[in-house]
Amino acid sequence: MSGNSFGKAFVVTTWGESHGKALGAVIDGCPPRLRLTESDIQNELDRRRARGAPASTTRREPDKVEILSGVFEERTTGTPISLLIHNKDVDSKAYEAIKDTFRPGHGDITYQKKYAIRDYRGGGRASGRETAARVAAGAVARAVLDQEGITVTAYTLELAGIRAQKMDLEDVEKNPFLTPDRDAVALMEKKIEEIRTCGDSAGGVVEVLVHGCPPGLGEPVFDKLDADLAKALMSIGAVKAVEIGVGMEAARLLGSECNDEITPEGFATNRSGGILAGISNGDDIILRAAVKPIPSIQIEQKTIDIHSQPTTISVKGRHDISAIPRIVPVCEAMVRLVIVDHLLRQRVLG
Amino acid sequence: MSGNSFGKAFVVTTWGESHGKALGAVIDGCPPRLRLTESDIQNELDRRRARGAPASTTRREPDKVEILSGVFEERTTGTPISLLIHNKDVDSKAYEAIKDTFRPGHGDITYQKKYAIRDYRGGGRASGRETAARVAAGAVARAVLDQEGITVTAYTLELAGIRAQKMDLEDVEKNPFLTPDRDAVALMEKKIEEIRTCGDSAGGVVEVLVHGCPPGLGEPVFDKLDADLAKALMSIGAVKAVEIGVGMEAARLLGSECNDEITPEGFATNRSGGILAGISNGDDIILRAAVKPIPSIQIEQKTIDIHSQPTTISVKGRHDISAIPRIVPVCEAMVRLVIVDHLLRQRVLG
Amino acid sequence: MSGNSFGKAFVVTTWGESHGKALGAVIDGCPPRLRLTESDIQNELDRRRARGAPASTTRREPDKVEILSGVFEERTTGTPISLLIHNKDVDSKAYEAIKDTFRPGHGDITYQKKYAIRDYRGGGRASGRETAARVAAGAVARAVLDQEGITVTAYTLELAGIRAQKMDLEDVEKNPFLTPDRDAVALMEKKIEEIRTCGDSAGGVVEVLVHGCPPGLGEPVFDKLDADLAKALMSIGAVKAVEIGVGMEAARLLGSECNDEITPEGFATNRSGGILAGISNGDDIILRAAVKPIPSIQIEQKTIDIHSQPTTISVKGRHDISAIPRIVPVCEAMVRLVIVDHLLRQRVLG
Amino acid sequence: MSGNSFGKAFVVTTWGESHGKALGAVIDGCPPRLRLTESDIQNELDRRRARGAPASTTRREPDKVEILSGVFEERTTGTPISLLIHNKDVDSKAYEAIKDTFRPGHGDITYQKKYAIRDYRGGGRASGRETAARVAAGAVARAVLDQEGITVTAYTLELAGIRAQKMDLEDVEKNPFLTPDRDAVALMEKKIEEIRTCGDSAGGVVEVLVHGCPPGLGEPVFDKLDADLAKALMSIGAVKAVEIGVGMEAARLLGSECNDEITPEGFATNRSGGILAGISNGDDIILRAAVKPIPSIQIEQKTIDIHSQPTTISVKGRHDISAIPRIVPVCEAMVRLVIVDHLLRQRVLG
Repeated sequence: MSGNSFGKAFVVTTWGESHGKALGAVIDGCPPRLRLTESDIQNELDRRRARGAPASTTRREPDKVEILSGVFEERTTGTPISLLIHNKDVDSKAYEAIKDTFRPGHGDITYQKKYAIRDYRGGGRASGRETAARVAAGAVARAVLDQEGITVTAYTLELAGIRAQKMDLEDVEKNPFLTPDRDAVALMEKKIEEIRTCGDSAGGVVEVLVHGCPPGLGEPVFDKLDADLAKALMSIGAVKAVEIGVGMEAARLLGSECNDEITPEGFATNRSGGILAGISNGDDIILRAAVKPIPSIQIEQKTIDIHSQPTTISVKGRHDISAIPRIVPVCEAMVRLVIVDHLLRQRVLG
Repeated sequence: MSGNSFGKAFVVTTWGESHGKALGAVIDGCPPRLRLTESDIQNELDRRRARGAPASTTRREPDKVEILSGVFEERTTGTPISLLIHNKDVDSKAYEAIKDTFRPGHGDITYQKKYAIRDYRGGGRASGRETAARVAAGAVARAVLDQEGITVTAYTLELAGIRAQKMDLEDVEKNPFLTPDRDAVALMEKKIEEIRTCGDSAGGVVEVLVHGCPPGLGEPVFDKLDADLAKALMSIGAVKAVEIGVGMEAARLLGSECNDEITPEGFATNRSGGILAGISNGDDIILRAAVKPIPSIQIEQKTIDIHSQPTTISVKGRHDISAIPRIVPVCEAMVRLVIVDHLLRQRVLG
Repeated sequence: MSGNSFGKAFVVTTWGESHGKALGAVIDGCPPRLRLTESDIQNELDRRRARGAPASTTRREPDKVEILSGVFEERTTGTPISLLIHNKDVDSKAYEAIKDTFRPGHGDITYQKKYAIRDYRGGGRASGRETAARVAAGAVARAVLDQEGITVTAYTLELAGIRAQKMDLEDVEKNPFLTPDRDAVALMEKKIEEIRTCGDSAGGVVEVLVHGCPPGLGEPVFDKLDADLAKALMSIGAVKAVEIGVGMEAARLLGSECNDEITPEGFATNRSGGILAGISNGDDIILRAAVKPIPSIQIEQKTIDIHSQPTTISVKGRHDISAIPRIVPVCEAMVRLVIVDHLLRQRVLG
Repeated sequence: MSGNSFGKAFVVTTWGESHGKALGAVIDGCPPRLRLTESDIQNELDRRRARGAPASTTRREPDKVEILSGVFEERTTGTPISLLIHNKDVDSKAYEAIKDTFRPGHGDITYQKKYAIRDYRGGGRASGRETAARVAAGAVARAVLDQEGITVTAYTLELAGIRAQKMDLEDVEKNPFLTPDRDAVALMEKKIEEIRTCGDSAGGVVEVLVHGCPPGLGEPVFDKLDADLAKALMSIGAVKAVEIGVGMEAARLLGSECNDEITPEGFATNRSGGILAGISNGDDIILRAAVKPIPSIQIEQKTIDIHSQPTTISVKGRHDISAIPRIVPVCEAMVRLVIVDHLLRQRVLG
């Protein structure tokens, strides 16, 4: 009844703690005969790594992935694909201080209450580092999607209150914030620097765009495509809200403003975000995730220790200022996992 | 690989079409020896029924529930509980017109593309009527939660742009909009009447509050409590966005504004919405769903028929103007299902 | 974590107690556009009903099935198919005597220990009557298999020590024991009469033959086709052993006697029972289930009551002398469910 | 829809090919705070390794296990436990010969038909080597069972036609055949030597005994304890039949000979094998698996190549003569997995 697996047809199980020996993923259900190499996966992992972006940690993990099974002569065989990433740059000393103290905004206190034991080093299983395994699995999903002509692109729509005004998707990979608005980059950089100086942290909004998704994906009534996408994004530690299409704005629109009229050439608008009654309609799928600020801040905060005694904490360690942009490839990976899962599930209908 | 079941320990399977013989739910995994009667379930169904609220349909279903199994001498036995609700007031004639025409904003076109067949009468499986089965199942979940002292309360935070300013939860059941702000009722009524006159429809925001939830519920890393809650709400047809705690606002806060400091008496604030790292922290769980306007509007809209020929449609039939307030008990039911499921899952830890 | 669902792609959930209002099944994952009528299902149920065979109960249930959802204009729609069978000939009085006494060989004592409550009437959920829902679901599976040209035939290989010597499958439906050896019928009849006179009961062996199954079905390593078939048959109350192909005899054969040599025309022999490494090889699949005697016997037996006090019991009620032949269509149904499930699962590979 | 995971509460996912880089298991759902070290797991793996028993292969794998996650300071944390076993003594040359030829009795032909690709080296995923991961996972299960006082013991009841006559369980670990009858050892040795000389192979029967299992485990109606045990054993490559309690013999007994009478001190006999109506009754659970002879034999056999051309094959390589005794700890591991899974599932009832 534990929850470390995701998907029903394309099933990903991840494991590993931030400061353990390694972390990894097992993918069960990947179709056979797809071309897949370690460098396909490495490419995606490299996008998630800290790259000297102003918002990022100074921990430097090479995140070198190994494929241990399920691939023979660079082709998937239909058997489980086991991916392994060793932890190298582990420095647990900084965490001794928080062994007995719960960091506000973190899972320290809830893990302790749930399990009555926890690997406190680096946040253990609750660390953002866990998402490396998701990204690796997402790269396998990408191999399936590439073959079907489906692309998934995530980008920073907003960071620390600065919102992208332009949508040049080809610019996304050209700037450290993975934003489609090159003019916003300098503003974001400046803002992040200010926040860092204050010892504080920042959140933002990630948008994900799925192009080329065929109509018909999604399973009524509970495993709707949007329901599974919402779960996928909300399962990422820092995410506090998920929107599909017009999202929250739907609450204020009239029916005549919210419906997408249908023409022989397709939908006239895309307010639905590409999903109707939980099933893809063939249009682009658009969704957004609100990312909260990194809870580890240097500003002193009130908290308690494991004996419920009051204390204060100022988190040092090697932390990002914002989960953005490193969370961007994670959102992309999670959306890929959902799309592949539903693509395979749809095949059952024959 | 179909998706008509929900939950892992407390598993609900629903079935039934809007204009079929009946609809129902099977609950597998309900603990034994709980008191449960048909009237416990009927109470919840009655809350979901159209009650002459200005926003509601004129279809009048008695929604009389029968318990067919799993209960013996008013106690659950641990075996599957089968609930049956007959459809009585079925008038499919109004739907003959849309047999060959796809209604904008509805699942007509996506169901057709997915299955290459569809029960078009009343929207078939995609009808909001399907949620009666969810509410019935939620009533069984309530029997478990009552015993644990956990309450789940949903209410209308916003309808057609009018937002509740007061939070008097005891007022919720006293007005037809299920809003905690009695002063907003007249405004909502007026607004809904205006929209009805225009042949249009309206959306809104439902908020759900869980009180008394013990810490420790939620399973890392994919089946986080908030991830499952997001899926639960997004699986309701009309929902386009889900927020936990500060929700979308998290994107614009600083870490020092978003974290909840911890004191020996508990959390100083509740921006997290009661969930940290996907696990309940013992505080109230707060979440919101954005509800889109009912897509069936009388205003003429462009669409196509099943031969892809352009046409127009003006939907008559017996429709609600807004999914609110009837969706409120549905949100409540879905949240109950998630909380019970995780409550039972937590027991596995011993 | 309860276990009333079976299958992963073609998922059957059954519910209902022997003396409750009704019993039924929900089938989620049936492919759309298949022809399906109530009489298709009724035919299979009629085969399971007591038909005046010497081994059968005197309870006379019409077992009239209703399709409540998932079928529109005699075609499946891809949505859940809900099947309902009302209990009519319920006579619970005979069971008052056993309310407080555990019948040897029955689940009375284990249900009580598991749930600390039980619906004792007619054995409740543990009654053989539960299998009516399996047979109904198996009839839906048959609609899928028919389309693929796969046939599943079960028959009585042995009853009360009398083994069929001939294998005339066309004779199976022509005799009350569903045996392929018409010469064995009189012997079986005589033997059963003798046992009935003694107030005792008898077991036997059911064999199931799957013809036309394509190669490639079955999922390594745990969901092997034979593993799922073994579970399917062993999940029937009275079954105590399951064999595939040569079965128990495999233990005494040499490799050279057990292997099936391969020729361009196919396998030279079929000792494997049509399954290699858990995957169908295209040959006939052959399996057998050992069925224990009905535990309800008139002969007095020692037992205890719910207060752990010693007592004796002689079970009256309306019972079969043997689960055979009524269990034969149940075995057939369970095998159909497994084959359909794996047929659909194989489609995922594309 | 692939099948490399086992269990619902204690979920084991295995991965790895015979001649790949490594193999392993991920256990999701192990309760927290249990003591667990690599040597606990190593002990079980060492029992499975070829130990110079006359029936065994000459491949010498150290099978050194590493715990990569889920354990902190020698205690389980409730997060997934990842186990890794590197393949060291890989010699794929002997398999080049069978790259294009299907070995009778093996999965070569069915894997090829299922996936249209296969890692032919050493049998790939279909190799008995896969069971090392099961044994490793079973060792984790043992940590749970030890705490509950439940013991699982498997032994060789029969090998190559020689059946144990004595049941001295303390002798099992003292002889290379893992048989409880020390007097049978010399006979078995002689018989195996004869078979090896002929280039042939042998099967046998493994019996498994569960002691200390509480009553109440097992979930009606499909996930019966015996159903899941049957699946567990049948999922081991070489197993062709599974019996519970009296097993096949049940078919020939009368009800009065098959029922276990109940006394205040417990059941008078144990013909049921400790399971009634799919639920453990508190007595010892007894089951048996029939193991077919190793299909790789030196005797020349007819077969075809991947172009369907007739050919012959005489399998050299480093093979066991019998899956016994190495399969004994595998059976034990699989039974442990089932018992732990149902133990945890029972906790849900509260």
